[in-house]
Amino acid sequence: MKFASDYIVGVDLGGTNIVSLLINGEGKVVGKDTRATLAQEGKEKTLSQIVNSVRTVLEKGQSQGISSTSIKGVGVGSPGPLDTKKGIIHFAPNLPGWNNVPLVSLLADQLKLPIFLENDANAAALAEWWIGAGKKVDNLVLLTLGTGIGGGIIIGGEVLHGAWDTAAEIGHMIIHEGGLVCGCGKRGCLEAYASATGVIKRTASLIKAGRKTLLRELVHDHLEDITCELVYRAAERGDELSQRIVEETARYLGIGIASLVNILNPEVVILSGGMTAAGDLLFKPVRKYARKYALEAAIRGVRIVPAKLGDNTGALGAAATVLKRKGWI
Amino acid sequence: MKFASDYIVGVDLGGTNIVSLLINGEGKVVGKDTRATLAQEGKEKTLSQIVNSVRTVLEKGQSQGISSTSIKGVGVGSPGPLDTKKGIIHFAPNLPGWNNVPLVSLLADQLKLPIFLENDANAAALAEWWIGAGKKVDNLVLLTLGTGIGGGIIIGGEVLHGAWDTAAEIGHMIIHEGGLVCGCGKRGCLEAYASATGVIKRTASLIKAGRKTLLRELVHDHLEDITCELVYRAAERGDELSQRIVEETARYLGIGIASLVNILNPEVVILSGGMTAAGDLLFKPVRKYARKYALEAAIRGVRIVPAKLGDNTGALGAAATVLKRKGWI
Repeated sequence: MKFASDYIVGVDLGGTNIVSLLINGEGKVVGKDTRATLAQEGKEKTLSQIVNSVRTVLEKGQSQGISSTSIKGVGVGSPGPLDTKKGIIHFAPNLPGWNNVPLVSLLADQLKLPIFLENDANAAALAEWWIGAGKKVDNLVLLTLGTGIGGGIIIGGEVLHGAWDTAAEIGHMIIHEGGLVCGCGKRGCLEAYASATGVIKRTASLIKAGRKTLLRELVHDHLEDITCELVYRAAERGDELSQRIVEETARYLGIGIASLVNILNPEVVILSGGMTAAGDLLFKPVRKYARKYALEAAIRGVRIVPAKLGDNTGALGAAATVLKRKGWI
Repeated sequence: MKFASDYIVGVDLGGTNIVSLLINGEGKVVGKDTRATLAQEGKEKTLSQIVNSVRTVLEKGQSQGISSTSIKGVGVGSPGPLDTKKGIIHFAPNLPGWNNVPLVSLLADQLKLPIFLENDANAAALAEWWIGAGKKVDNLVLLTLGTGIGGGIIIGGEVLHGAWDTAAEIGHMIIHEGGLVCGCGKRGCLEAYASATGVIKRTASLIKAGRKTLLRELVHDHLEDITCELVYRAAERGDELSQRIVEETARYLGIGIASLVNILNPEVVILSGGMTAAGDLLFKPVRKYARKYALEAAIRGVRIVPAKLGDNTGALGAAATVLKRKGWI
């Protein structure tokens, strides 16, 4: 930051909730607002939710003596595809009706502040680079392990956007050509195997093939209730089928990470998202398989670690986008 | 270049030949020297071959009125692994006895010029970015299709080195986990399928499985004489087995390129190396499969094209490394 008295706002625009943070130049949170996105009530409603959320954290700042002139900008992390330069959200799967929305100019009109847009997974990677698990590292890759698999890549301390803001679609690397069908319609994507969706599908197909498992008991035979978390819990309790799924998931992730390491040679690979709650049960075999499948010279010094920033990651990264675009970090 | 009167030298250090070029700031070649690497005669011999080759092009320059003061530096493109910052070649498969050779300081001592070291595939990518098939493009990927598959990646006009100079090992992306064994010892690497070695192995295994092919005739039943070039020639003549191999090779390359496009979102993908002599027979299906396997938003505007600079690519890229490190391009 230029001055100790400068502040910024970060907004994480999710399909369910909007999280806004008012932070100082070191990432210290001085105000937070969480509210429903109300995506089903339409675009205008969600826009006013964003504006009100930002105004709320600004008011929280004012009550602590932070004047409006010390607010240097607002960063918004959003699902994509989007255009970070033009500030347009082309389309957002979880926000019905959002087609080519010029979010930056719409928010600038109302908030009278500089607005910056970033892809949500890129923002998460930037946050972890700035003050998280990849602090002081030049090159890192972040994988978000959720319903799907997203990603963010930092190279030389900069977010990799690529030519048309579509870079870091890590979930759609093909690790097994001709393999399982992915949500994107192709076959063999990493996401088809190692996302929560992939884990659940692979588990279900083993159960349907007649394998015995503690999971049946845990969901009282309602197989549709099986979650990724339950699989990890059953594995911890010694369930063989679940242990096999956990081991295979780590292998698929290890293969994907190995390819990323061979291509990008990052110093740190950060895993985030619900599945990382499994801790060592996930990380130990992932590290083993990444080491097995990557080139030794590339993987030797790589750290594969959990994300550090928790629930605030998205909004912190959105705020960091302001600092980045202004050249302050 | 800072001044129109500035010149640079680029050296392509290969296992068989050393190519040196004296060029001006626009890449115009004013002197060239090619000589044997004499790798089998040891490191000292090869070092003196490099020094003599550089001195020869400098003399060619002098005879054209280019003074020694206008020579701004020498770039060397070398196989790796190497350390571009420290100027050390750790190891070079084709240069026996080269272990942790401090090439930059050794050459600087003898040539009294600034010396810069770059990985050979990175140098090729830089050359194509500078004055070749990727001119005026910010982001590109180059694949070298030879005995193995190498790569170079340009992001934001800069060579991607990664944390420890091992980035762009594109040939070792895993495209089919558990698949064919690669030269690196792992299974399922792109190189195992789509390098010249991979093409020949896949062809041989189909022939051994009893498939009929024109190739038998072309090599007078000496199957060990089958080359990648012959496979493409037989495919052009309508040989079904060869056509199948050509189509499959394009599919494997398309899958690898799709993953690269999803991860990096480049504007241009450049293919270089012997196999590209096949022209449309290679490029048409490669483009088709890359489009099939990549995300539409990422691949839509990507051009997949042959390299442009031919035999001089390596030395031109080595020279461009000097310009790059000095911040002139």
